[in-house]
Amino acid sequence: MPDTVVPSVTDVVELTRALVRCESVTPREAGALQLLERTLTPLGFRCERMDFTQTGTDDVANLYARIGTGGKHFCFAGHSDVVPVGDLSSWTIGPFSAELSAGYVFGRGAADMKGAIAAFTEAAARFTARRGRDFGGSISLLITGDEEGPAVNGTVKMLKRLAERGETIDACIVGEPTSSKRFGDMMKIGRRGSMTVDLVVRGIQGHVGYPERLDNPIHRLSAIVEALVREPIDKGSTHFQPTSLQFTTIDVGNKATNIAPGTVTARFNTRFNDLWTSKTLLAHLKERIEQASAAVGGNGVVEYRNVEVSGESFYTPPGALVDLVAGAVRDVAGIDPELSTTGGTSDARFISAYCPVLEFGLVGETMHKVDEKSAISDLKTLSRVYETVLDRYFGS
Amino acid sequence: MPDTVVPSVTDVVELTRALVRCESVTPREAGALQLLERTLTPLGFRCERMDFTQTGTDDVANLYARIGTGGKHFCFAGHSDVVPVGDLSSWTIGPFSAELSAGYVFGRGAADMKGAIAAFTEAAARFTARRGRDFGGSISLLITGDEEGPAVNGTVKMLKRLAERGETIDACIVGEPTSSKRFGDMMKIGRRGSMTVDLVVRGIQGHVGYPERLDNPIHRLSAIVEALVREPIDKGSTHFQPTSLQFTTIDVGNKATNIAPGTVTARFNTRFNDLWTSKTLLAHLKERIEQASAAVGGNGVVEYRNVEVSGESFYTPPGALVDLVAGAVRDVAGIDPELSTTGGTSDARFISAYCPVLEFGLVGETMHKVDEKSAISDLKTLSRVYETVLDRYFGS
Ligand SMILES: [Zn+2]
Ligand SMILES: [Zn+2]
Repeated sequence: MPDTVVPSVTDVVELTRALVRCESVTPREAGALQLLERTLTPLGFRCERMDFTQTGTDDVANLYARIGTGGKHFCFAGHSDVVPVGDLSSWTIGPFSAELSAGYVFGRGAADMKGAIAAFTEAAARFTARRGRDFGGSISLLITGDEEGPAVNGTVKMLKRLAERGETIDACIVGEPTSSKRFGDMMKIGRRGSMTVDLVVRGIQGHVGYPERLDNPIHRLSAIVEALVREPIDKGSTHFQPTSLQFTTIDVGNKATNIAPGTVTARFNTRFNDLWTSKTLLAHLKERIEQASAAVGGNGVVEYRNVEVSGESFYTPPGALVDLVAGAVRDVAGIDPELSTTGGTSDARFISAYCPVLEFGLVGETMHKVDEKSAISDLKTLSRVYETVLDRYFGS
Repeated sequence: MPDTVVPSVTDVVELTRALVRCESVTPREAGALQLLERTLTPLGFRCERMDFTQTGTDDVANLYARIGTGGKHFCFAGHSDVVPVGDLSSWTIGPFSAELSAGYVFGRGAADMKGAIAAFTEAAARFTARRGRDFGGSISLLITGDEEGPAVNGTVKMLKRLAERGETIDACIVGEPTSSKRFGDMMKIGRRGSMTVDLVVRGIQGHVGYPERLDNPIHRLSAIVEALVREPIDKGSTHFQPTSLQFTTIDVGNKATNIAPGTVTARFNTRFNDLWTSKTLLAHLKERIEQASAAVGGNGVVEYRNVEVSGESFYTPPGALVDLVAGAVRDVAGIDPELSTTGGTSDARFISAYCPVLEFGLVGETMHKVDEKSAISDLKTLSRVYETVLDRYFGS
C-alpha cells in the first residue's frame, strides 16, 4: 500500500488532500480506492471492489460502497482516476502535493473530481451520524478508476453487475465539476451524444505533372470537410445546443513532393443533441459526404471505418430530482444553477439508462490543466449541498 | 571498378545494355560514367569528370565529354542515374540484367535514359567516323548522375562551371523519353514551372465538446484547399496546358479523438505555364488563400514555409532548332512529333537559361515502373535521328 494512504478522515478538505496525494492517473489506483474503503467502512458502508482485468495494462479498480439495504436508493457516482499532469515544469506546486494556498486546495483531481468524492463522503458521514445507519433507505458511492480512460471497465460494468443481481438505483448525482465560473452556477441535466467516425478517402495516386491521370483524395476530402462543417447540422433543441462536428485529424504522410497520394485518412467527432440518434445522424452525414464526393466527380471513394458511438444524447427532464438538487444549491449557496447539457461526455451517459441522473459539482475551470485547484469554501459548500440533497431526498 | 563495366562498344543496343548493368541508382555512379568515358575517349572526346561532393551521401558523379574546340557547339544532355527498382518481386526480369526479350531491352534505365545516351554515343561515333574529328564544330555530352535526385550537384553546377570558363553551348537536346505511345510522336519544347509550398495553418486547440472555444485549423484548411483547386488558375496558353495545383500531403498526427488540433500542415505543388512566374503565381495563390481564410472567420492564421521553386516555366519557341529536330524525326521515323510542354520537370529547365534546348527521346511509357524497357528498333531509330540532327546542324 503506498505511503500516501493516510488514516481515514471524513473532513472534506483533509479527505480531498489525501485523495489528491494518491497518484491515480488512469488506470492506476494508487491507493485512492483503498483510502476511500478505509474511510467509508467505519461509517457503516459495505465496500465492494469491482475490479476488471484488461489486457496490456493495469486492471481497472472500482469501488462500490453502500449503506442500507432497503428503501429508496440514492447513488453518488464519480471517478477516482485523474488525467496526466502534462507539462510538469508548468506547475507552480507539485501536482500531487495537495498544498493549501490562498484558500485553495491545489493538485491534480482537486476539481475533477476527488473534491466531490470527499464532499459526498463528508455529507454521508454527517447524514448518517444524525439519522443513524438505519434511516430507512440506501446511499451508495459508485466510484470508478476508469472514467478518464477508455471508460469500458468502470461504470458500465459496475452498473451491469448491479442490475444482474437485482440491485436498483432510484436517483443519482454524478459529482463532475459542472460549475462554470462560480460555485453553483450550473448543473448538467444531460449531455450530448458523441460519435467518432474515421474516413478513408481513396483516389488514384500519380505524378503531379500529369493531373489528368490522377484523382487526388485530398481534394475530395476538402469538399467533404466543407460539406460537413459549413452548413449547421441543426439549430439546437429546447435543452440542447446545436449539434457540432469537428475534424480532429487528417493524415497522409506523403514525403514525395511530386506525387499526389492515393489515400488520405481523416477523423471527425460529432457531439449531437436529442434531435438525433447516432444512427439517424450517421445516415444524414453520409448523405452529405456522398453528395459532396459525387459533386467532385472522378472515381474516388469514401470508406467509413471505426464508427464509434461513445454515448447517445440523454437528459433528465426537469422534475423531482432536478428540482431537489437545484433547490439545495439555491438554499445552501444562494445561487440558481443553470440547467445545462453542454460540455464533454461523462459517465452519466451510462447511468441514464438505469435511473434519473444529473451532474453537479465544483468549479471546473482548472480541470485537466496545470495548477488544478478547488476553493476550500467551495468544498465545504458542496458538502452541505450534498447533505441537504440527502436530507430532502430521504425526508426529514 | 565493378565487374559490370565491359569493354567499350558504340553499338546502341550493346551500350544500352552495358549501361543498364551498372546499378547507378541515384546517387551511385556504379561504373556508368567510367564506361562512357572509356567509350568516348577512343572516339576523340576529351572526358572530364565534374564530381561534386555533397554531405551525408555519395559524391555526385558527372561527366562532360567534348570533341572539337571551335565552331558551333551542339550538346547532348542526359543523366546516367536511375530511380530505385521499387518492388523487386514485381519485376519479371532482373532490373539490372539488361535482358533482350521479344525485341526489347529490359531493365531500369532502358527508357529513362541510358538508351538515349547510347543512341547519341553511337550517332556521334558514326558522325565523326564519316566527317573526321575536325569537322569544324564541337559536340559534347553533358551527363549528370543527379537528375533523379535533388538535381543540385549535377547539370546546374556543370553549366555554371562551363560558363565560368567561357565555354558556350549553341544548341542542346536532352534525351529524356519524350515519346508517348509510339516512337517519335512527341517532343518537348518546354516545361511548366514547378513550385512547392508548405502551409502551416494555426488555430486554437480545444476539446471538441466546446466548439465555441476552439478554432479548428482543419476546417480553415479545407476552405483553403477548395479555394485553390476548384477554380482553374488559368486556361492555358498557346504552348502550355492550364496551370495545375495538387495538394500532396496534409498532416495533423492527432490521436486524441476528443481534441481538435491547434495546427495542421499541408503541402501543395503547382505546375505553372508561361502566363506566370513563380513570383506572380505565389502572389495570386496567397491572395486566394487569405481570402478563403478570412471568409472562414475566427483568428486562425496561415504561415507559408519552404516555398521551393524547382524551375520557372520555359520553352524554346518553334524555330530553327525545333524545325531541325522535328524534321529529322519526320524523315527518319516517318512521324510528325507533337510539340509539347506537358509532363514533369527535367534538367532542360536549367539548360534553357544558356541556349535553345528541347527534349527528344524514347517511349517513356515504362519509365520509373517495373519491367522498364525500350524497343531495340526504337533505339536504332533514335540513334539515326540524333545522327541526322548532327548532320543537318553542322551542314553536310
Ligand atoms: Zn471528471
Ligand atoms: Zn529521365
